[in-house]
Amino acid sequence: MLLSVKDVEEVLNIIEKNFPVENKKTEKVGLLNSLGRVISADVVAPVDIPPFNRSVVDGYAVKSSDTFGASEAMPAILNNLGEIRIGQKPMSEIKEGECMYVPTGGMLPLGSDSVVMIEDSEEFDSDSIAVYRPVSPLENIMKRGEDIKNGQVVIKKNEVMKPRHVGVLSSIGLEEVEVIRKPRVSIISTGDELVEPGKELESGQIWDINTYSLAASVIKDGGHPVLEGIVRDERDLLKKKVGEAVKNSDMILISGGSSAGFRDYTAEIINDLGTPGVMVHGISIKPGKPTIIGKVHNKPVIGMPGQPVSSLVVYKVIVSPLIRKLTGYSLMQKNNVKAFCGENYASAPGREEYFMVELNEKEDIIYALPVHGKSGMITTISSAKGMVKIPRNKEGIYRGEEVEVILL
Amino acid sequence: MLLSVKDVEEVLNIIEKNFPVENKKTEKVGLLNSLGRVISADVVAPVDIPPFNRSVVDGYAVKSSDTFGASEAMPAILNNLGEIRIGQKPMSEIKEGECMYVPTGGMLPLGSDSVVMIEDSEEFDSDSIAVYRPVSPLENIMKRGEDIKNGQVVIKKNEVMKPRHVGVLSSIGLEEVEVIRKPRVSIISTGDELVEPGKELESGQIWDINTYSLAASVIKDGGHPVLEGIVRDERDLLKKKVGEAVKNSDMILISGGSSAGFRDYTAEIINDLGTPGVMVHGISIKPGKPTIIGKVHNKPVIGMPGQPVSSLVVYKVIVSPLIRKLTGYSLMQKNNVKAFCGENYASAPGREEYFMVELNEKEDIIYALPVHGKSGMITTISSAKGMVKIPRNKEGIYRGEEVEVILL
Repeated sequence: MLLSVKDVEEVLNIIEKNFPVENKKTEKVGLLNSLGRVISADVVAPVDIPPFNRSVVDGYAVKSSDTFGASEAMPAILNNLGEIRIGQKPMSEIKEGECMYVPTGGMLPLGSDSVVMIEDSEEFDSDSIAVYRPVSPLENIMKRGEDIKNGQVVIKKNEVMKPRHVGVLSSIGLEEVEVIRKPRVSIISTGDELVEPGKELESGQIWDINTYSLAASVIKDGGHPVLEGIVRDERDLLKKKVGEAVKNSDMILISGGSSAGFRDYTAEIINDLGTPGVMVHGISIKPGKPTIIGKVHNKPVIGMPGQPVSSLVVYKVIVSPLIRKLTGYSLMQKNNVKAFCGENYASAPGREEYFMVELNEKEDIIYALPVHGKSGMITTISSAKGMVKIPRNKEGIYRGEEVEVILL
Repeated sequence: MLLSVKDVEEVLNIIEKNFPVENKKTEKVGLLNSLGRVISADVVAPVDIPPFNRSVVDGYAVKSSDTFGASEAMPAILNNLGEIRIGQKPMSEIKEGECMYVPTGGMLPLGSDSVVMIEDSEEFDSDSIAVYRPVSPLENIMKRGEDIKNGQVVIKKNEVMKPRHVGVLSSIGLEEVEVIRKPRVSIISTGDELVEPGKELESGQIWDINTYSLAASVIKDGGHPVLEGIVRDERDLLKKKVGEAVKNSDMILISGGSSAGFRDYTAEIINDLGTPGVMVHGISIKPGKPTIIGKVHNKPVIGMPGQPVSSLVVYKVIVSPLIRKLTGYSLMQKNNVKAFCGENYASAPGREEYFMVELNEKEDIIYALPVHGKSGMITTISSAKGMVKIPRNKEGIYRGEEVEVILL
């Protein structure tokens, strides 16, 4: 197959056109499992809150008209019908000239429209209360529905759940909420040299890195990783595995082994499994050029480079935006920081390039220092706090130039 | 009990002195459960990575001295011993005048010190290879331990696990990692008017908000909330519940009901259960004044205000820093944004005050607009994106003044 390498922008456009995100699947989750999830439809209050006229002070529920004109010198004397207990319905209504004790949060009795604060009153005799200050209608109460009205939208579609939203949902009595289902992302690692972490290595073998770093990245972007394990570098095995994954997942990432034939397998398999099959074969990005983007049964199947650093860059630039879109997250990377480049960094024009940086803060100025190391070294990633993009038409970054660091 | 109200700063000092965070408990978790957790001890590589001399190109493993002087006109002719398969040990070593095919990632045979790229060579006859370019020692290989050395620290203590760290751990074969155990935070709600979300309300009742919003906040701060449920407003019941919680958890939050007697119960119970008992009874903060901080069996027991907005403010200002400290997180609030206050907001000096704000972005300038609403309204929280502090010695914020917004 002829490798016609495409620009990053072109690739992102192809992805956007081919994988429109409509009619996302939804699910109900419990309140404490909802943090970080995206609300799939406006949440509407099924009740008035408060559900009854409620006192906001400790005092006496009264008809306000009974207190008009009351003063220290000329208190209003009201007949005390007794105490309303919090959480309970008042035992009777009140009529002209009557009052009832109500605690903060207590339900007002029918007939009352306001509450006299305890400090503005005094026991007059065993049956009655002296009120020394007039209250106006609605004073010291929160009316039924004054906080939230039945039918009111309390959380809008697409909001990301935070603790304060959990409080709002519990206030209207909901124990669950409907959120966008996490996209299932299958991760397949290929390569005869790979062994699962935790198992013993034999000569010539190394531990699989990409399954776990990709899975962790998927989790961070709000997806649900499905670990398909390591597939030996044989066309039929890989084809079977990808075919199954396409049925069960919303997206498939195939992490390439190091062997030369692998890339061709992946492209052939994607073409075999469905049309249009391979849409992108090679991206003008460094590192990460040998990336494949296919479409099988309307699902994205992405051949990722095997090298850990390339894999990370392709994930961040190409895959992460798609997963975040499926998750319902905003694409805005709010996690970038501005910094000054601490060294010259050369690049060839004609492709987008990314390099890993450490961050160094000195007197309120942040410096981005390129992390050096041979291509593919995992230590490059472990010491990198972020990565810096060199646009396609630029020949590197000068020392002292301001750059935007994409935090990792 | 005499209520001697203390400043926020004083309270934070008391907490710091009384609850030193040393010898945090740790636990092992699987790689994909480790995201966001705090590493409890330096992670040391138990092996060299790569574990063998590895080719970084497709080509021929050679003794570099055999290629010195080689050119297009005068190639070095080497005897080809065959192919090394990826993931396998080479079947023999190579001697002077010999070579072996090795794929990218393949293990170098003993005797070789470099790899000639495939494009710099040609099959000469069925048994031998012509090499057209000299290679220097170590060219095109990554030596055993060149990336990570046995004994090297790959992740430092106190790092917060991110996807890139997961990659590093899997590269050294680890399937688990030791992290700081999540602090267990018991949450007790009291109040006879409270009903769990999901259940039916009767007259005079409301749904419990604070259990869920506090639990969600604890989760966000890296803690493990233990929902103790709603306790009826009776001294003995509450005392029993707090006593049990102190045994099983690292911290206890008691969310106050609205009834007047409640605060005294809480203080008395804390004093009954252990010394020194109540250390702070009232904080000069608005909202949130009626907060109690106690110490029972060396564990913090905190009486939180029952009103949801007050509860949120006290959680953010007083409780959150302590939970983050127990979790191992840095206390730096990196989540604040600067904004211009959109309205005048008056405050009485002598106490710290917090008000809820919405954020409005216009032409790259962020405005913080106070959220209005009666005290205790849950809608105040649902529309607030953050909160703004008015320091103790300030009488409010002027419109147009720059403020720091603590994001919620």
